[in-house]
Amino acid sequence: MKSSARPVERHVSRPTLYLSARDLACIVNTKGLAACLAGMADYIRADFLRWQDFEKSARLASHSARGVIELMPISNAHDYAFKYVNGHPQNHALGLPTVMAFGVLADVATGMPRVLSELTLTTALRTAATSALAASVLARPGSRSMALIGNGAQSEFQALAFQHLLGVEELHIFDVDQEASEKLCRNLHSAGMDIAVSASVAEALDGADIVTTITADKTRATIVTPDMLAAGMHLNAVGGDCPGKTELHADVVAAADVFVEYEPQTRVEGEIQQMPASFGVTELWRVLAGLAPGRLAGAAGSSQVTIFDSVGFALEDYAALRFMRDAALELGVGQALDLVPALSDPKDLFALLQPAAARPQQKGVLVV
Amino acid sequence: MKSSARPVERHVSRPTLYLSARDLACIVNTKGLAACLAGMADYIRADFLRWQDFEKSARLASHSARGVIELMPISNAHDYAFKYVNGHPQNHALGLPTVMAFGVLADVATGMPRVLSELTLTTALRTAATSALAASVLARPGSRSMALIGNGAQSEFQALAFQHLLGVEELHIFDVDQEASEKLCRNLHSAGMDIAVSASVAEALDGADIVTTITADKTRATIVTPDMLAAGMHLNAVGGDCPGKTELHADVVAAADVFVEYEPQTRVEGEIQQMPASFGVTELWRVLAGLAPGRLAGAAGSSQVTIFDSVGFALEDYAALRFMRDAALELGVGQALDLVPALSDPKDLFALLQPAAARPQQKGVLVV
Repeated sequence: MKSSARPVERHVSRPTLYLSARDLACIVNTKGLAACLAGMADYIRADFLRWQDFEKSARLASHSARGVIELMPISNAHDYAFKYVNGHPQNHALGLPTVMAFGVLADVATGMPRVLSELTLTTALRTAATSALAASVLARPGSRSMALIGNGAQSEFQALAFQHLLGVEELHIFDVDQEASEKLCRNLHSAGMDIAVSASVAEALDGADIVTTITADKTRATIVTPDMLAAGMHLNAVGGDCPGKTELHADVVAAADVFVEYEPQTRVEGEIQQMPASFGVTELWRVLAGLAPGRLAGAAGSSQVTIFDSVGFALEDYAALRFMRDAALELGVGQALDLVPALSDPKDLFALLQPAAARPQQKGVLVV
Repeated sequence: MKSSARPVERHVSRPTLYLSARDLACIVNTKGLAACLAGMADYIRADFLRWQDFEKSARLASHSARGVIELMPISNAHDYAFKYVNGHPQNHALGLPTVMAFGVLADVATGMPRVLSELTLTTALRTAATSALAASVLARPGSRSMALIGNGAQSEFQALAFQHLLGVEELHIFDVDQEASEKLCRNLHSAGMDIAVSASVAEALDGADIVTTITADKTRATIVTPDMLAAGMHLNAVGGDCPGKTELHADVVAAADVFVEYEPQTRVEGEIQQMPASFGVTELWRVLAGLAPGRLAGAAGSSQVTIFDSVGFALEDYAALRFMRDAALELGVGQALDLVPALSDPKDLFALLQPAAARPQQKGVLVV
């Protein structure tokens, strides 16, 4: 971890680095989306491989009739990170994204917030990178076709992550909102993938090696039913992510080997909320670390159905924040934000109220 | 609550209002510190009086050897708020404040973050306003003298809140760091209070109607011992606020009627962490609402010792955020922050990566 190598003394008295939504778009466009997805997957893998170094907790969710607002904190000996994220399925009718997010990276040694970043775009990237990382150990080797159910805000990122990181070349897409599917086709028309719009979920799944479900309704949906399964399929179930929000029929879950991010959180939020507490699952980090099998070898693997029951875990956001911070510093992107007052005497907060301190601050360029 | 009166539709597609540390200083200097303390106390009282409207939880704390980082969320039907705050007693040696904070006010209906504000200065104001509000129902009527133990970053705010909201005219101050006491005297030299520097805690408490303890060590300290107590004293115990961090001898707590903000949190973090779970306490909101007695009337009240075991509760930060937002809008202070991407089609997040969207955004003035 880069930050752990820096002495505490070099951290102090610096402003917080602010990365806006446009800064993030600038980073992705400059480095390239494929490079960002690959880089982020590397950061996520690295953090999953040091799983024991983190103080983990299930996210703190506040549910309302329209949606949910969540705080997702995580820390290790050096860094503290959290993400604020909402999920409001009806937001699009108001012109707002379903999912909006931002997050902070802070120093454990001092509590100083070092980076404040938008995470709406970043969440789409990190979710897609995590999905592809999981599929790299859970999908059949040589998987080339993917059904993509739900063609909303995150769908292009899923498609491109599977293309660039796994070699998926063929998409069967479906959404109840035909305009969403048309938007997906438009956005990916030059991506070099073979994209077919399906008339139904069943049609999309027919012949697919991988199935990605990423729908947004806050309901118990049964988008995939047992009759649609084929031997050897890998299901990347991304849309179900809070109590009462699922996408797979319980019998689909029962028929598969299920892999999760952080079991205590997924028991409450994931597809496995439909299953008894005794239903066995495997945490993804154990597969990545070689401590548990993912996709089995040989004939067993050819018939095995796997599910990555992804709800999104704070560790992925921490990795994403690290990646974006490092990219921003490399490219000189971002602004200095005076989120914390700079005090000449830290015991003299009252000095902030002296007239000289109250003058508007000049916008500064962050010196790294 | 102002925001609840606005239709959801008027909220959308507006940027987040950012209030920096300097913006907050500007607000306080323009409105006046006394008016801000009084206004914030009014907002806090109003929110305590609708206690049942809030979804409350103890804060989520991440402890390390050097300090603690906490997230403090709270919500009602309309608003969601959270504060990020640290507590690192040794930070001053690095030139950083012991306590740094920022927070967000968001719409429950959409999850949209409406306000991002510094809360370092604001926390000092809201803590002092809460202390004075509690003392208004817990201290003896006519209290004029206060011992102020701990003369660090928050001490001036405590002194001025008790002066302006309660009529305290006389301060006996003490700190193990003599320079901190000198700084306090300098900062308040024109405040019109009678300030005496005491040679010990016992000397400071001698003759004081009210005792405010606001020290920062992350240790079980016994700053106030039973021999220092006098009949009728009110103790405003602010510094103890996490497991293992207390300021009062257990026998001091046992000898008093104890009032708390939110009992489940204070049991873990407050002075009463030293007491058995059966030790009775009263939540402050019940006193403010007339549901429970505070300072007793007559002779019983003259001898009663009361403690406000204050650890800081999310509801106070919500009230403080509301106050500062309203003041900022009234004065035209603050900046527009593109924390959430503005999308012409909310299902088309991918459009952010089109070249036109990646151009640096012009700094906008927030239109209210």
